Formats: sequence, structure tokens, C-alpha cells
Amino acid sequence: MKPVTLKEIAEKLNISVTTVSKALKDYPDVSKKTKALVKELAETLNYKPNSFAVHLRTKESKTIGLVIPEIVHHFFSSVIKGIISEAEKEGYLVIILQSNESYELEKKQIDLLLSHRVDGILISLANGTADFKHLNAILEQDKPLVMFDKIAKLVKCSKVIIDDQKAAFIATQHLIDSGCKRIAHFRGPLLPQNSIDRFLGYKKALLANGMEYDPRLVYLSDCGENSFDDGKVNAAQLYKDHSDVDGIFINTDLVAIGAISEFQKLGVQIPEEISIVGFSNWFMSSVISPTITTIDQPGYVMGQTAFIQLYKEIQALKKGTPLQPETITLETALIKRESTKGS
Amino acid sequence: MKPVTLKEIAEKLNISVTTVSKALKDYPDVSKKTKALVKELAETLNYKPNSFAVHLRTKESKTIGLVIPEIVHHFFSSVIKGIISEAEKEGYLVIILQSNESYELEKKQIDLLLSHRVDGILISLANGTADFKHLNAILEQDKPLVMFDKIAKLVKCSKVIIDDQKAAFIATQHLIDSGCKRIAHFRGPLLPQNSIDRFLGYKKALLANGMEYDPRLVYLSDCGENSFDDGKVNAAQLYKDHSDVDGIFINTDLVAIGAISEFQKLGVQIPEEISIVGFSNWFMSSVISPTITTIDQPGYVMGQTAFIQLYKEIQALKKGTPLQPETITLETALIKRESTKGS
Repeated sequence: MKPVTLKEIAEKLNISVTTVSKALKDYPDVSKKTKALVKELAETLNYKPNSFAVHLRTKESKTIGLVIPEIVHHFFSSVIKGIISEAEKEGYLVIILQSNESYELEKKQIDLLLSHRVDGILISLANGTADFKHLNAILEQDKPLVMFDKIAKLVKCSKVIIDDQKAAFIATQHLIDSGCKRIAHFRGPLLPQNSIDRFLGYKKALLANGMEYDPRLVYLSDCGENSFDDGKVNAAQLYKDHSDVDGIFINTDLVAIGAISEFQKLGVQIPEEISIVGFSNWFMSSVISPTITTIDQPGYVMGQTAFIQLYKEIQALKKGTPLQPETITLETALIKRESTKGS
Repeated sequence: MKPVTLKEIAEKLNISVTTVSKALKDYPDVSKKTKALVKELAETLNYKPNSFAVHLRTKESKTIGLVIPEIVHHFFSSVIKGIISEAEKEGYLVIILQSNESYELEKKQIDLLLSHRVDGILISLANGTADFKHLNAILEQDKPLVMFDKIAKLVKCSKVIIDDQKAAFIATQHLIDSGCKRIAHFRGPLLPQNSIDRFLGYKKALLANGMEYDPRLVYLSDCGENSFDDGKVNAAQLYKDHSDVDGIFINTDLVAIGAISEFQKLGVQIPEEISIVGFSNWFMSSVISPTITTIDQPGYVMGQTAFIQLYKEIQALKKGTPLQPETITLETALIKRESTKGS
């Protein structure tokens, strides 16, 4: 059974399509009797307005686009959940695309979303993204854009972030406070702003405590992404090169889990010989042994906040009163667990 | 800068909107010179066809809907990734909604997707879904529907599944082969078909090996969902009630991780005192200690297969030759790890 159209309702009642349409929208120039007839038949036939036609008229699609680096990822899937739960409340649907950390894909996906005339776009950048033309193209079309987590400071749009530098400072300070004397850092890939900020927070904490900053103790991600294997590889290398290191601040929990797995294989006691602090508070970190001290990063709330900001901007734009971009910083917290001493 | 319209191009060239539209579509009744002029200007102004208008004409939205019980979930996020990666290849966008295991939400979401005129729907049912009117409503609108993982056998649409009963039989047989004499089962919630089938596979394996089936050894989920806490609660109860149990087949890895965490607290040795087999092969199961023996359930491939089937049905429908529903069964594999003996 095909969906019922306005035309079919009109034919059945022997009136014009315009009258049917007006009746359904309660226009005053249609009689009460006609309205009642049309509405009853529309209900009986389970008529549903064609949303494309509605959109063509209102120029709204009631959909937004979301571009995210990776879906199979505890933090990002929490963000997605936060976004779609808020969007649903406002009757918005969310189209999700995964950039796979690739700048080229990200560019194509934004084009695709714009050609589908989404009402706004949410994005967390791919690690490889260093050029922002595709993002400025969104703003040039007067389309609201909100970035979250992995952002580009230079793009003039609203952003939802955490204070990565401050959180990394607190993480490193905790290692120092619990007695670590020589602290390494696994910093992940080179480009993304949050990698840079976490690294800066680590360095700042060392200097603030009168400790030496030794660039040889900073390990980049080999493969350019934060993976379990990355943690294993860097842990093995660190163990070989710097057996005097007694603490590591690691860019993300998944890498920390890989590092712990490697240290266990090597017979290194955690936290007795090496203390570890991760980042993000993946669920896994609370159930593996030892449980991991980490920074809680509010993924679900970040998703909610990003959608609410985008929605505000879409509404403001409709009223012709566009908003100034805002940067919203969410709170993080240090979660002390078994991978550090005195927790 | 607003997107450029056909009207603006027409005004700039002082020709009609119809001519512009025909020129862009290479209609034969427009001169070569006009076509060249229009195309050049369209390119200069970065004209993009309004996809709503295109859709209204072609009756295609090039979007599909996906309703999934939970996004922050290793198996389902792998499925999502498989779906959107295949969809993108065919130029389809995916709208994702989360039913949160609620039948009521699932019903509303399907209505919403239908009113947005998606070209087809993919769904994995909520645990609470026992009525299928909302699913049959999709088919009554001649809209392709493909179910995956958590399906309803009675709905006449294509399905992508694994053979849960067979996989559960193999999991239980592995416990028997490794020497377990009294095997319990944590079966999760009551309703979903995959819970039922995994339970049946467990029972069949016991009987096939001449072992007693004792319904008191089958533990339901307290809260109606497969959670970490569910595993802890059931493990504690089992330990109190049946200290002679030496093996458990557990419905899903997350619950198995909870059970292991509780047994470790109680000082029960795994696998020496109790062997455990999980289900799904969550990434976590390969990195916690002990690593968990489990059934590998191919989430990413399931997502790909479900989209490919839906796409075939959308194409067939366009040609007016609708396909017969198919049920595609994907292979699973037993992954032997540290939580069972002799692995």
C-alpha cells in the first residue's frame, strides 16, 4: 500500500487539492464541515504529510549532519548518544558519517551533507585535518556549525570542549603528588588540538614542580592514531630506553590499556614500578585489572550540549537574528584508581 | 552567503528558470551556447541542486533509517560502522535513532522515519518489542525493511542473523569438552529471540551429552538488560546457591566481565574453579585478565550485509520487481582464551 496523497483525498471527496491542504492546516477560508470531512478521511487513510514537500516550502529539513572520526569508540559513541537523544526531543533527525580520521573523507562528507540541505552540522575533526576551507564553506552558506572535542581554533563557529591543558596538568600533578620522579608522556598523533593541549598541560606541570622536561620521554603515536597496539609498542620501547621512568601520563585510556598489557607481559608492577594515568574514562578502565586512574571526559553531556547550541543557532537564524559563536568548556574530573599509588 | 538558486542564475542570464533547469539537465531543446553559459555560471557560483526538489521529483530521498537498541555498545557500534561505510559507497545517508530497548520509542521512531520518507529501514529490535504492527506498517507502505541481530521471526522481511542456537551449542560443548560437570547459564532478558535461541543451544548441548538440564541453573537478567552489574549480581547469587557449578555459559561478554569481576572479589579462581564462556567477542574480552573465551559475532560484516540487502531491495522496487525476503545467516567462531581450561 503506497502512502496516501493529498490528491487521493481530494478525489475521494470531490474537492480541490488546495482545499484539502488548507483544511488540514486549519485555514479560516475552509468551512468547518469540509475540515471535519478531510481530517476524518486523512486519519482513516493514515495520511502522512510528505516531509520533502513541507521542507521545500519551509526550507527546513529538520535533519542535521554529524561527522565523527570513529564510531566504534567509547567516547564518541557516548557523544552520538547525547546528540541524538537531544535532537529527538526537538523533532530533529541526525545523519551520521564517519570520517575515519581522514581529511579527504571529511571534506566529501560535508559536501554531501550540504547538498542534502541539512539545517546544521556538528563535527569533531579527523586527526589529519589541517586545512579548514571545507568548514568555512559551511559558514559561508549561513549554515550553523558547532565543533566539539577535536576542534580548529581558527574557524569562527561555536565549540564545545573541555580544558585539555588543565586536565592534563591535573593528571600529571597527581603522578607527581603520588611520588613519581621521572614522568613520560604518550601523546598520540601530532596534529589534533587536544593532543597538543594535553602535551602542553603535561609539560607545564613538570616545570611548575621544578622537574626537568625531557623531550625524549614524549612518545608519539607510530600509526597516527590512538590504538591499543600503540600503547603496547610505546610501552615496550620506553622499557628498553628509559628504565628509570616511574610514571606515564597517557593521552587516552585505550592506549593506557595497551601499555598496561605490555608491562604485565614484561613483569613490570603497576603502580609499584610504574604509575599510569589515562584520559577519557572509558568504561573498560573501571573493570580491567588494575583499574586505571584517568580523567573523566563527559561524552554524553558534550553531545547534548553541542546539539543544544546548534539548535539555538538554527532557531536564531530562522528569526533572522544570528548568534555570535560561543565556546563552551565542560568540566572534567580526575578519577583515582589502582594504576597510581595512594589512590 | 545563501546557496545559489536556479532563479538567480536565470536572472543573471536574463533567461527563464525552466531554460536554466533544462540546460543543466542537457535537454535537447536548449541550444549548445545557452547550455555552456548556464553551466559555466552554475559552476562559478557553486550552484548545488536542491536535493529536496530532486527528491520530490524522483520520490527518492537517498537516505535510509536505522533503529538500534543502544549505540554505546561494542557490537552495535561495529554494526553501525558497517552500515554507514556501505551506504556511503552507494551515495546513501543514514539517519540513526536509538530505541533504548523501549518498544514505545521504537514505534515512534519508525513513524518519524516514514514521515521523513526514507527509502528503507534497518532495525535491530528492542528487548521489549513483542508486537509487530509498527514493522508491518513499513511493509504495507512498500518500503524495504531489513532486520538484523534481534529480529522477529514472524515479520515477512529480509533478515541478517547468526545461528545463535548453534553458536550457543558450540560454546556449551566447549565447556563440557574442557571437563565441566555442572554448567549454569546467564540468559539475559526473557523476550529477544537471540536470548531464547542461545538458551535453547545451551540446553540442547547438555542433553546431547547425557547431562541433566536443571532450570535452577538458568539465571535471568534482573533488570531486563545485559549489563555489567547484571553479571555481578548473578555471579554472587550463583556462588551462594550452587557452589558445585564449575562452568557458566553467559549470554554476552559484558555480563561475563561483570561475573568475572565478582568471582575475583569472592576469591574464586577462573578457570580452575569456574570456567566461563561469553558471547559476542567484545574488544574488552581480549584485553582483560583473564581474557575471555567467547563466540565471535561479526558486527561490522552484519552491518555491511544488512545495508547491501536493503539496497538490493530498494533498487528492485524502483524497477517494479520487488524481491522475496531472504534470511542471511553469517558464520560465527569460538575464540578460546584464558577463562576456560585447556585453551
